[in-house]
Amino acid sequence: MNLELTREYISELRAIIEARDDKAALAMMNDLHPADIAEIYQELNIDEVKYLYMILDPKVASDVLVELEEDDREQFLRALPAEEIASQFINNMDSDDAADVIADLDDLVKQEVLKHIKDIEQAGDIVDLLSYDEHSAGGLMAKELIKVNENWSLTTCLREMRKQAEEVDDLFYIYVVNDDNILTGVVSLKSLLIATGSTIIKDIYDKEVRFVRTDTSSEEVAQIMEKYDLVALPVVDSIGRLLGRITIDDIVDVIRDEAEKDYQMASGISSDVETTDSPLRLSRARLPWLIIGLVGGVLVAALISQFEGDIKLNPEMAFFIPLIAAMAGNVGIQSSAIIVQGLASNSLGLESTFRKLVKEFFVAIMNGLILSLLLLAYNLIMQQGLALTYTVSISLFVVIIFAAIFGTMIPLFLDKMTLDPALATGPFITTTNDIMGLFIYFLMGRILYDAFAVI
Amino acid sequence: MNLELTREYISELRAIIEARDDKAALAMMNDLHPADIAEIYQELNIDEVKYLYMILDPKVASDVLVELEEDDREQFLRALPAEEIASQFINNMDSDDAADVIADLDDLVKQEVLKHIKDIEQAGDIVDLLSYDEHSAGGLMAKELIKVNENWSLTTCLREMRKQAEEVDDLFYIYVVNDDNILTGVVSLKSLLIATGSTIIKDIYDKEVRFVRTDTSSEEVAQIMEKYDLVALPVVDSIGRLLGRITIDDIVDVIRDEAEKDYQMASGISSDVETTDSPLRLSRARLPWLIIGLVGGVLVAALISQFEGDIKLNPEMAFFIPLIAAMAGNVGIQSSAIIVQGLASNSLGLESTFRKLVKEFFVAIMNGLILSLLLLAYNLIMQQGLALTYTVSISLFVVIIFAAIFGTMIPLFLDKMTLDPALATGPFITTTNDIMGLFIYFLMGRILYDAFAVI
Repeated sequence: MNLELTREYISELRAIIEARDDKAALAMMNDLHPADIAEIYQELNIDEVKYLYMILDPKVASDVLVELEEDDREQFLRALPAEEIASQFINNMDSDDAADVIADLDDLVKQEVLKHIKDIEQAGDIVDLLSYDEHSAGGLMAKELIKVNENWSLTTCLREMRKQAEEVDDLFYIYVVNDDNILTGVVSLKSLLIATGSTIIKDIYDKEVRFVRTDTSSEEVAQIMEKYDLVALPVVDSIGRLLGRITIDDIVDVIRDEAEKDYQMASGISSDVETTDSPLRLSRARLPWLIIGLVGGVLVAALISQFEGDIKLNPEMAFFIPLIAAMAGNVGIQSSAIIVQGLASNSLGLESTFRKLVKEFFVAIMNGLILSLLLLAYNLIMQQGLALTYTVSISLFVVIIFAAIFGTMIPLFLDKMTLDPALATGPFITTTNDIMGLFIYFLMGRILYDAFAVI
Repeated sequence: MNLELTREYISELRAIIEARDDKAALAMMNDLHPADIAEIYQELNIDEVKYLYMILDPKVASDVLVELEEDDREQFLRALPAEEIASQFINNMDSDDAADVIADLDDLVKQEVLKHIKDIEQAGDIVDLLSYDEHSAGGLMAKELIKVNENWSLTTCLREMRKQAEEVDDLFYIYVVNDDNILTGVVSLKSLLIATGSTIIKDIYDKEVRFVRTDTSSEEVAQIMEKYDLVALPVVDSIGRLLGRITIDDIVDVIRDEAEKDYQMASGISSDVETTDSPLRLSRARLPWLIIGLVGGVLVAALISQFEGDIKLNPEMAFFIPLIAAMAGNVGIQSSAIIVQGLASNSLGLESTFRKLVKEFFVAIMNGLILSLLLLAYNLIMQQGLALTYTVSISLFVVIIFAAIFGTMIPLFLDKMTLDPALATGPFITTTNDIMGLFIYFLMGRILYDAFAVI
C-alpha cells in the first residue's frame, strides 16, 4: 500500500523513460498517490520529470505539482509558458494550492498566468488569496467550503450540499451562515445523520463555532487548532463574513516548519535547508552564524590576551579554558531552549518573569553546586595546585549561575521586543556566555593565586 | 470566543472558590472548552481544582482530565478512590483516552479501576489497548469508529451509522469491511451524500485505503498521515481485521513532541520538561548532559596539559583555545542537525551516505576557507606573530573539515545501530569536537612554531 522507494524502482523507471514507453511508465505509477509521485520526481532529472508530466492525467499532474518541494516546482514551471501553467495545472487546483503555486512565480509570469485562467470566479478567488500575508490565516485558507443557510430545511441543505460537495475534497464541518453570509455556527455531519428531512438547520446547529480572522497569524491558527483538536477552522473578515477555511494538513506543515526552524536556529543554521539542497545553499545558510562565532572567538581571544601575564606565570590556567567556556555555553543553551519552546507552544502560563528567573536561579545553584563539587573532588584527587583547584571550582559555580540567568532573560527580552526569541540560541548565546565565563574565570584566578601566594 | 487567560480572571475565580459559590463558579466556566478549563486548572492549587471537579458536569470533567498535563492528572487522581475514577471519569471517555489515563496509574490502582468499569465492552476495549506499546499505532488508536459492511445498501448503511455515530465524536471517514471484519476500503461522506438509497456500498466505496498495523511505530504513522494529508487512519491486526482508528489530533501531538525532543536533546536536556515543572525536575533533566560536558572538559584539560611547555613558551597560544573549540562545536552541530532532521522527517531521499559525506566535505572546504582567510586577514592586520597567525588559520581550516565529517557520520552511524541519532547532538558532539579540535591546534602549533623558529 505504502510505496517503498527503492533504487531498483528508480532505475527501472529511468530505463522506461529513456525508451519513451508511455504505457509502461504510466503502469509503474498506476495507483500511486500524488505525494508518492512527487517523491519519485525528486530522484529524477528535469527532462525525465517533464516527460512524466506530459503523459500523466492533468488532474494527477496538478496534485503532484502541489506536493513538490518549492525549489523543484519553480525550476519546472520556469520551463513552461504561462498559458500552459494556467490551463494544465491551475485549473485543476483548489484555490489555496493555486495561490501558493502562483505566489512563487516571477511577477510578469504571475500576471500572465492569472490572465489565462478561464474560470473568472477561480481567478478572482486566487487574486483575493494572493493579497494576504502568507503567514496569516488569509494566506493559509482555501475558498472552497460547504456552507448552508440557517433558515434551510435539512432537505434543502442536503440538496445544496450535494452541489457544493463537487468542489470540496474533504468534508469535515458544514458551516452555517445567515442571509448576509455572516458565520453563525457549525453543523456536524453527525447531527445531519441523526436528523430528519423537515428539520430546520437553525434548530440543530451549534452556535459555538471557533473561527479566526484573515489577519490572525499562522502560529496562532496552529495553536487554536492544536488546543481544540480541530481538523478545519473557518476564516472570516473583520465584520464576520465567512471567507474560507483552513484544514489541518496545512497546519501540520506550519507546526513542523516552526519546530524545525527553532531547532535549526539553535544549531546555527539561518534559513530553511535540507540535506538534498546544493552545497552552495547549505554553505550560505550556515556561514552567518559561523562568522558570528568567529567574531566572538576573536573577542574572547582579545579578552584572554589581557591575562597573558597570568598565563605565562601559571600556564595550567589554560587547561580549563575549554571547560569553563563549554559549561557556560551548555547551561545558557539549556535555559534558553526551555524558554524558547515555552514561547513557541504558548505553554509558559501566567507564571511571572520574576518567578521564572527565581526558578532558574535555584536550578542553577543546585546544578552549579553539584558540578563544582565534582570538579573539586577530581582536582584534589589528581593533586592539582590548590590555587588552580579552587579557581576552577568557584568560577564554575559563578559562571553557571550567570549563564542560567542570561539564558533565561535574553529570549524573554527578545520576545518583549517582538523579535524572534530563537535568536538567543545557538552561537549567539554561546559566544556571550564564553566571554562572560572566561572573564570571571581569569579574574577569579588572579584573586585566588594572589591569595594563595600570601598564604 | 477564544479564552484570554488573565490574572484578573484567575483571582476572581479563586475568590469565588473560596466563598464556595457553586453557581458563580459554574457561570465563570460556562461555555468554556475543556482545553480552556484545563489551562485554568494549571493556575490553581490542588484543593481548588478538586472543588471545581466536584461541581462540574461529569462528562465535561472527564474531557478536562484528558486535556490536563500528565503530572497534574496523576497528582489529582492519586487523591481519588478507584471506584470514583471508574464511574466519574473513565465511563465518559473514548477508549484511547481512557487507556492513556489508566496506563499512568499505579499497577494496583489500575486493576481496581478496571474492575469498577460497569460497561464490560468498554473495559475489554481498554484492556486490549493497554496491551500495545504506547509508541505504536495500537497505543495511539481508539476503538470507536464507524464501519459498514460492503454488502449493505445505502439505506441500511445510514441506519447503522446513526446507531454507531452516538459513540463517535468526529466523523471523518466511514470504513468498509467484509463479513469477516477485514478492512476492504473506505467510503467518503461526500459519496454517501451524492448516492441514492438503493445503492450498494460495494459499488461506491474506494478500495484504495491506507492503513497501518497495530505494531507500526508512531513516527511512521505520523509520516504517513502527514504525507498523504489524512485526518484519520484505520488500524488493522496482522490478518487485516479492522481494530481501530487514529485521528490527526493525536498525531499532531506526536509530531510536536518529536520535534521538541530533538530540539531539547540538541540543547542538552534529556527528558521532556517545561518551564512550569519543579526546579528539582528541571535540574535532573539537565544534569546528565552537564556531567558529560564536565567529563569532556576534564579530558580536554588533560589533553592541553600535555602541551603545558608550549603554553609556557608561547602563552598567546591560549588566546585562541575558545575560538577553535567553539568553531569545532558549531560546525559539528550544524552538520548533525541537518542529518538528524532529515532522518526525523524521512526526507533524506535515496542519496547515498557517501554522496552526503562528499557534499558536507565540499561545504566544509568552502566555509573553512572563507573563515580561515578572514581570521588570517584579521591577525595579519593586528600584527600578531606569524607563527600564531598561521597556526590558528591552518588549524581552523583542518578542524572545520573534521568537525563537519564527524557531525555527518555520527548521527548516520547511530541511526544504523538503531540508536536515536539525536544523541549525536548537544554536549556529546561538542565535547568530541573540542578534544579533536584542540589536539589538532596544539599539534599544528608545535610544528609551525618550530618551523618559524628555524626561519
